[in-house]
Amino acid sequence: MQHSEKKLGQLISDLERDQIASIQKTLTSLNPSEIARLLESLTPGKRKIIWQLVDQDDEGDVLKELVEDVRQNLIGEMDETELIAVTQDMELDDLADLLVDLPEKVTEQVITALDQQDQIRLESVMSYEEDTAGGLTNPGIISVRRGITIEVLIRYLRRLNKLPEHTHYIYIVNKNNAYLGAVKLVDLFLEDKDKPIEAIMDESVKAIPASEDAKQVALDFQDLDLISTPVIDENNKLLGQVTVDDVVDVIQDQANSEIFNMAGLDDEDDIFAPVILSTKRRAIWLGVNLITAFLVAGAIGLFQEILQQIVILAVLMPIVASMGGVAGNQTLILVIRGIAMGKIQRSNARKLLIKESSVAVLNGFTWSIVVSALSVALFQTSWQIGLIVGAAMLINIFASAIAGVSIPFILRKMGIDPALAGGVLMITLTDVLGFITFLGLATFFLLGQT
Amino acid sequence: MQHSEKKLGQLISDLERDQIASIQKTLTSLNPSEIARLLESLTPGKRKIIWQLVDQDDEGDVLKELVEDVRQNLIGEMDETELIAVTQDMELDDLADLLVDLPEKVTEQVITALDQQDQIRLESVMSYEEDTAGGLTNPGIISVRRGITIEVLIRYLRRLNKLPEHTHYIYIVNKNNAYLGAVKLVDLFLEDKDKPIEAIMDESVKAIPASEDAKQVALDFQDLDLISTPVIDENNKLLGQVTVDDVVDVIQDQANSEIFNMAGLDDEDDIFAPVILSTKRRAIWLGVNLITAFLVAGAIGLFQEILQQIVILAVLMPIVASMGGVAGNQTLILVIRGIAMGKIQRSNARKLLIKESSVAVLNGFTWSIVVSALSVALFQTSWQIGLIVGAAMLINIFASAIAGVSIPFILRKMGIDPALAGGVLMITLTDVLGFITFLGLATFFLLGQT
Repeated sequence: MQHSEKKLGQLISDLERDQIASIQKTLTSLNPSEIARLLESLTPGKRKIIWQLVDQDDEGDVLKELVEDVRQNLIGEMDETELIAVTQDMELDDLADLLVDLPEKVTEQVITALDQQDQIRLESVMSYEEDTAGGLTNPGIISVRRGITIEVLIRYLRRLNKLPEHTHYIYIVNKNNAYLGAVKLVDLFLEDKDKPIEAIMDESVKAIPASEDAKQVALDFQDLDLISTPVIDENNKLLGQVTVDDVVDVIQDQANSEIFNMAGLDDEDDIFAPVILSTKRRAIWLGVNLITAFLVAGAIGLFQEILQQIVILAVLMPIVASMGGVAGNQTLILVIRGIAMGKIQRSNARKLLIKESSVAVLNGFTWSIVVSALSVALFQTSWQIGLIVGAAMLINIFASAIAGVSIPFILRKMGIDPALAGGVLMITLTDVLGFITFLGLATFFLLGQT
Repeated sequence: MQHSEKKLGQLISDLERDQIASIQKTLTSLNPSEIARLLESLTPGKRKIIWQLVDQDDEGDVLKELVEDVRQNLIGEMDETELIAVTQDMELDDLADLLVDLPEKVTEQVITALDQQDQIRLESVMSYEEDTAGGLTNPGIISVRRGITIEVLIRYLRRLNKLPEHTHYIYIVNKNNAYLGAVKLVDLFLEDKDKPIEAIMDESVKAIPASEDAKQVALDFQDLDLISTPVIDENNKLLGQVTVDDVVDVIQDQANSEIFNMAGLDDEDDIFAPVILSTKRRAIWLGVNLITAFLVAGAIGLFQEILQQIVILAVLMPIVASMGGVAGNQTLILVIRGIAMGKIQRSNARKLLIKESSVAVLNGFTWSIVVSALSVALFQTSWQIGLIVGAAMLINIFASAIAGVSIPFILRKMGIDPALAGGVLMITLTDVLGFITFLGLATFFLLGQT
């Protein structure tokens, strides 16, 4: 529907030629998510100019869609009056997310300006962590007490005139606001109007507890093809609903952070953050990897005597290490993703270990023969060295399969994100093991022979 | 809501103790998606037993949720009568996806058994690629001609009694079935019944063309917080609608395949595929990497003379290569993901290149000094060698940043998936470049000196 690639190019060239009117025209044709994406695609200088031109009514929704880093930057440059204006007319769940990033003084003013009911609702949403069902809950729903007829309900809805966005169900509660069931809008005019609403109430619409983890909420929505679902507190009191649009964001964010974490990046960072800031952020990951690189160098350092005697070993040794790394990484990613998708668990991990090790042995054998032969053919090594390369590679590939299955479970037990630390651990392990087995075997069989 | 981890463990132990009744009880408590996940978590032998116990009414929906590999296996073991039974009562868009995997004879029978209207609809869905809006389209919608009143529409809906699942809108068409706009269900009882439906028709509900790419459809849904959207053919004729539950699957699949592709895996493969089959599948990736590993070895092979003279170079050389690889991989993943999310495009790639190279130079300098110092301190190398390690690493990190930005654009232009080939290219490049610059500099400055 959108051709945002074209629009970004247009916007940048308009900016360079100071075509403010044209920029404003482009901006009004975009929705808040697209504006957010545009802002994230711009360098901080250009971003500031465009932000000034965004319609004030959209600003709250745009801020909500931005990655943390960019949002905080833009907020930092706005004054109190602007910030208060931005928060007007936002949905309460979105407001709750935004308030966390606002200066305390502004937060207080925004909350005081709400009517009492909304204050209570906002407080309840903010009392849950952002990555739980409670944190995703939108309190803006329609709930009615049981005991009324369909006709009374319809009259009530007509008096409201405008229903909250995302009203797919009317929720039924008892006099203590405990959740009982939901009525589909469509059933309101398909059924006889004199019936009590309980007659068309769908009790199979189950409420989820506010404390439920957002990842589990996402799985529930996928499993049951939900559009929205009611959320209750620990006393079965109805708090509001989670809607599928927020769940889509959860799924997208989860995938994003998993991919970014594999490279030691943070998906909430501004891709155009100032160079110094980016350098610092990346430095940590490089530092961690430097330690592992020196570990690997240290392992090779143990074998200087044999390297001195047979220099071709230095040429061949990266092959052993890298093939182990590649094979291990395949198992590792299969397992990390399998765990995240709920397909791999403790109960089937042993079976997977057997399967992955068998695959490793078969592939290890096959490619060891190829590597042995190629080493002799391409580098004119002795057949002994050829055999040693092959054997070391087989051992390394086999060990890497076992590590690929075990590392994610061990890290998870230690409370460390496998996507973040798994890759570094794997590469260090296969490098160290690869070099040690290869050079170790060479030392054992060949030292002093030539 | 679900505790599938527990349930899988329970099921496996029930299977081992032949507790069929208990297994059946567990299965009836699960929805099709959960059953699919369970089946994927089992080895082929156990999977076959459980599949026999799945309720026949659920089988179609379970098959639809399975990864390609597992689905085809289960289908291969069913006879014609079973397969035809499975396709009963499936939604047409799901049926269209399933039919592709069925034997031709079954497909024909299934199609002939449909009424004529459904045959035409099915044909239209099947005429579009699976990864387009048309392929995601469910023809089971309610559309009415303009010109009737709200009251007439309500009477029509009451006569239908049961509306299709996912009916959020009633679509309005002209006499040629061209799409005009949509009516929200809720507006049907909020407004005066004598009004023509055009009065409450929402023209802002835009239809998407059937040829639109599924990835773009997913972006549209995220941008506009859609629940469902009408789909039209090239003549503006209404074909059906895409609903958010299918879009959620698209988003999940996209993230999955991106992560799997990075390791040369296929997200549609059975994790418990037979060992021989898995071995063959993995072998290709290992073979590709073997070629690159020999390229790297070949690069080192050019410098045997200097390695013979100064053996410590062999110890330090992996540090240069791996630090370049780590830094390059960060930029690469940032860019690949940024392109997928629509945040990085040709128009801002140059700015990103400048930023990433600047970050690389700063981090390169910092860590080069550290590496130089550590090499001298830990391995008692000469200061010349320390300097050469640092210089080679700086060059390698800088080059890897440029490669990280360029590789995805170049691969995309060549029609190759950057997630699949980017990582291999990057690691080959940083290895080859790292070893050549390091050993090359050493040869130039140090050969013959010691």
